[in-house]
Amino acid sequence: MFDPVEKLKEFIRHPSVSTDPSFKQGMLGAQNFVSTLLGSLGFKVEVVKTDVHPIILASRGGDPSWPHVVIYGHYDVQPADPVALWKTPPFEPTVVGNRIYGRGAADNKGPLLTNITAIGLLLEENPNLPLRITFLIEGEEEMGSPSFPAFLSGYTDRLKEADFVFLSDTALPNEHQVVITSGLRGLALFDLHVTGAKGDLHSGLHGGVLLNPIQALAEICASLHTPEGRVNVPGFYDDVLNVEDWEREQLALLKPDAKSYQEFLGIDAFHVPPGFTPFEAIRFQPTLEFNGIGGGYQGEGTKTVIPSKAFVKVSCRLVANQQPDRIKALVIAAIKERAPKGVRLEFVDQHKGEPYVVVPPGRPNTPKDQSPVLARAFRATESAVTQVWGRPPLYLREGGSVPIIAEIKRATGLDSVMLGLFLPEDNLHAPNESFNLDVMKKGVETAKRIFAAVATS
Amino acid sequence: MFDPVEKLKEFIRHPSVSTDPSFKQGMLGAQNFVSTLLGSLGFKVEVVKTDVHPIILASRGGDPSWPHVVIYGHYDVQPADPVALWKTPPFEPTVVGNRIYGRGAADNKGPLLTNITAIGLLLEENPNLPLRITFLIEGEEEMGSPSFPAFLSGYTDRLKEADFVFLSDTALPNEHQVVITSGLRGLALFDLHVTGAKGDLHSGLHGGVLLNPIQALAEICASLHTPEGRVNVPGFYDDVLNVEDWEREQLALLKPDAKSYQEFLGIDAFHVPPGFTPFEAIRFQPTLEFNGIGGGYQGEGTKTVIPSKAFVKVSCRLVANQQPDRIKALVIAAIKERAPKGVRLEFVDQHKGEPYVVVPPGRPNTPKDQSPVLARAFRATESAVTQVWGRPPLYLREGGSVPIIAEIKRATGLDSVMLGLFLPEDNLHAPNESFNLDVMKKGVETAKRIFAAVATS
Repeated sequence: MFDPVEKLKEFIRHPSVSTDPSFKQGMLGAQNFVSTLLGSLGFKVEVVKTDVHPIILASRGGDPSWPHVVIYGHYDVQPADPVALWKTPPFEPTVVGNRIYGRGAADNKGPLLTNITAIGLLLEENPNLPLRITFLIEGEEEMGSPSFPAFLSGYTDRLKEADFVFLSDTALPNEHQVVITSGLRGLALFDLHVTGAKGDLHSGLHGGVLLNPIQALAEICASLHTPEGRVNVPGFYDDVLNVEDWEREQLALLKPDAKSYQEFLGIDAFHVPPGFTPFEAIRFQPTLEFNGIGGGYQGEGTKTVIPSKAFVKVSCRLVANQQPDRIKALVIAAIKERAPKGVRLEFVDQHKGEPYVVVPPGRPNTPKDQSPVLARAFRATESAVTQVWGRPPLYLREGGSVPIIAEIKRATGLDSVMLGLFLPEDNLHAPNESFNLDVMKKGVETAKRIFAAVATS
Repeated sequence: MFDPVEKLKEFIRHPSVSTDPSFKQGMLGAQNFVSTLLGSLGFKVEVVKTDVHPIILASRGGDPSWPHVVIYGHYDVQPADPVALWKTPPFEPTVVGNRIYGRGAADNKGPLLTNITAIGLLLEENPNLPLRITFLIEGEEEMGSPSFPAFLSGYTDRLKEADFVFLSDTALPNEHQVVITSGLRGLALFDLHVTGAKGDLHSGLHGGVLLNPIQALAEICASLHTPEGRVNVPGFYDDVLNVEDWEREQLALLKPDAKSYQEFLGIDAFHVPPGFTPFEAIRFQPTLEFNGIGGGYQGEGTKTVIPSKAFVKVSCRLVANQQPDRIKALVIAAIKERAPKGVRLEFVDQHKGEPYVVVPPGRPNTPKDQSPVLARAFRATESAVTQVWGRPPLYLREGGSVPIIAEIKRATGLDSVMLGLFLPEDNLHAPNESFNLDVMKKGVETAKRIFAAVATS
């Protein structure tokens, strides 16, 4: 068997930034890395072409009576900007203590390799393991998986034969407590461009007669939240799923520490919708955030222009059962209604993803028709986590998004067992991303036990 | 005598961007160009070192009984960004029809060369012209003339001996109507930086617990104007000078055309403080503008971060008798009071300039102690303009700023005769700046007559 840490270094060295076309070689390198690795473990590898980046399907067949797991992951990563803030080069993996630094170390190269390693070890120990396995590794997760719906409609029948999906692309609250993610937020993203005069103008010769597009944009942005921290868009909260008592209880067991969370963030005060703790707000409430804003002169010194244009990048995180298209339409309608006269608006649609919830077995709201293999997978995960980590996992919804999980559910009916493996301090989507190698080691052992238990039942 | 158009081409080819240190060679080239040219006309040239860019003083002495004019101009230009929007290279002068294109063509290289040419021709015709002349050509106008106060305190006594200042760094409303500028707006500039979390954060893992600095910035910016278009800062308008009846009458004589102005700007509607026409607003009212804004991810596609920082560049145009320091303090106090909790503010001071007014002879509010030579210069200008352009000039305050005019007044008591020479369509501070060569020709003839009349009286 391979050394998983060395393999992870190799994986990180491929700069697989999916949103930026200049990283084409890195994408190809990461894709070949995954295909070769799974091929070496005896999997039949198919590279499925899509409009953007290929999806890798790697399968191990077997008796139709054997349980069938789809293991999901992604080989693409976020851009590394701002590169200047990295202490080590983002695509040159660097081990310091029990951490490996590099873009994608935690999202999702480390966790994906954890599951591949577990399967490799398990098959080495028991080549006749009664488990059918399909790896489904995509290359567009960080750009919203635009090719995934088309892929799904072509492969629905084959995926429908499986019993459940397993993945590690969610978070642990700390390195002692494992979480099985029972919900993910969805996404609705768009850019707003505001145009005033037909060109940049001298602020002396023309200042005082027209609405500055930066001012118009500021007024629009400012209108989208109440001072209390709720999103100020009519209908925005209409479809938000109620929180179950057992969900609040699980979260209470986590004993989240507000003070150290605040210190970690480096903020003077939390800013949370009324009626929610910070930890509840992330899991149970939707957001509307501004990811970027720009317009006019941004260089050193001054340039006394009234700019012609300004823009903002908006993203909403959605919770079940909000629909991304409906939310985008509501926000855009509110913006159009509120925009001051004298400027023109242009909306550029970006990606979207549906929110997702799954209820573990034995809860008041567990669906009566839940798949027995899915229920077994949840029980096996509870048991393996308790053995390896010394305490049972918690079932929690989380704030991040893996939009294809809801897509898979809708297209194939399959639910997902999401075993979190990255930590808040791993700096996902930010400079100096890293992955905890102790977590990786325990993760390998946990996944081995889960798959063994699902297989032998 | 030299060909003024060829000389102007030569002048434009020196990329003298004062705010950007990488244009050092261009600054030096423009400075040498001016020094050499004035030297060739018989002036005694001094290059006065300052902390940033030198000031050129070029003098022609004479009998102490002769009138003494200080001719002001600047050899520096605005940055050319966004360079991609230029149709011709900004520092390669291009003549198309009766226009010369290039950065600085109108602001201020063309108008300055107009006055130098007039003096050259006049001295060629009459080498014994009874007029003392001091050219004062600075290289920091586009960066707020930071070295000018120190220069002034060193040269106050010398400048005090002069009778008035003459310059062409203001605008004509159209190519048929000359304006003598009777007021300039002042400036108060600063940047505001807003910081939220200590680093960029994943908008899924942390979205919902903290105030996004872009949102905080938007709320601050939105609060600084009323919906009607007034600056919403307590005390902002306290010191604003009343408009005289003769000023409104002069403006009415201009017969400004709102419809074609709106078309020129390319806007759907004017946005003017209540009680003012667009043309009055520019001349008689102060503004608060946002010249640039930035924060978070501004690239292609999406990056779902909550940024750590965002900033805005603020500039106020002031009218007499607002004090820049007081206005900055009022605006900053309002921002501090209104800023939402959970973010940190940092203010970076930029430059400033006092507003200025001068009243021509024979008005109800003309100062009783106005200098006779200044009064004569105004009358001479009225007469020359009427002869060369076929209609008398109008006295109008204008929206732009030449902060050193107020500085000179304060330090030396000298008032300025400002003969406008550039046009609204000259695109000052914007891409495709140009200067009208017919205006230049008439400007040379006008200036010749003015200086001849001042001298011979």
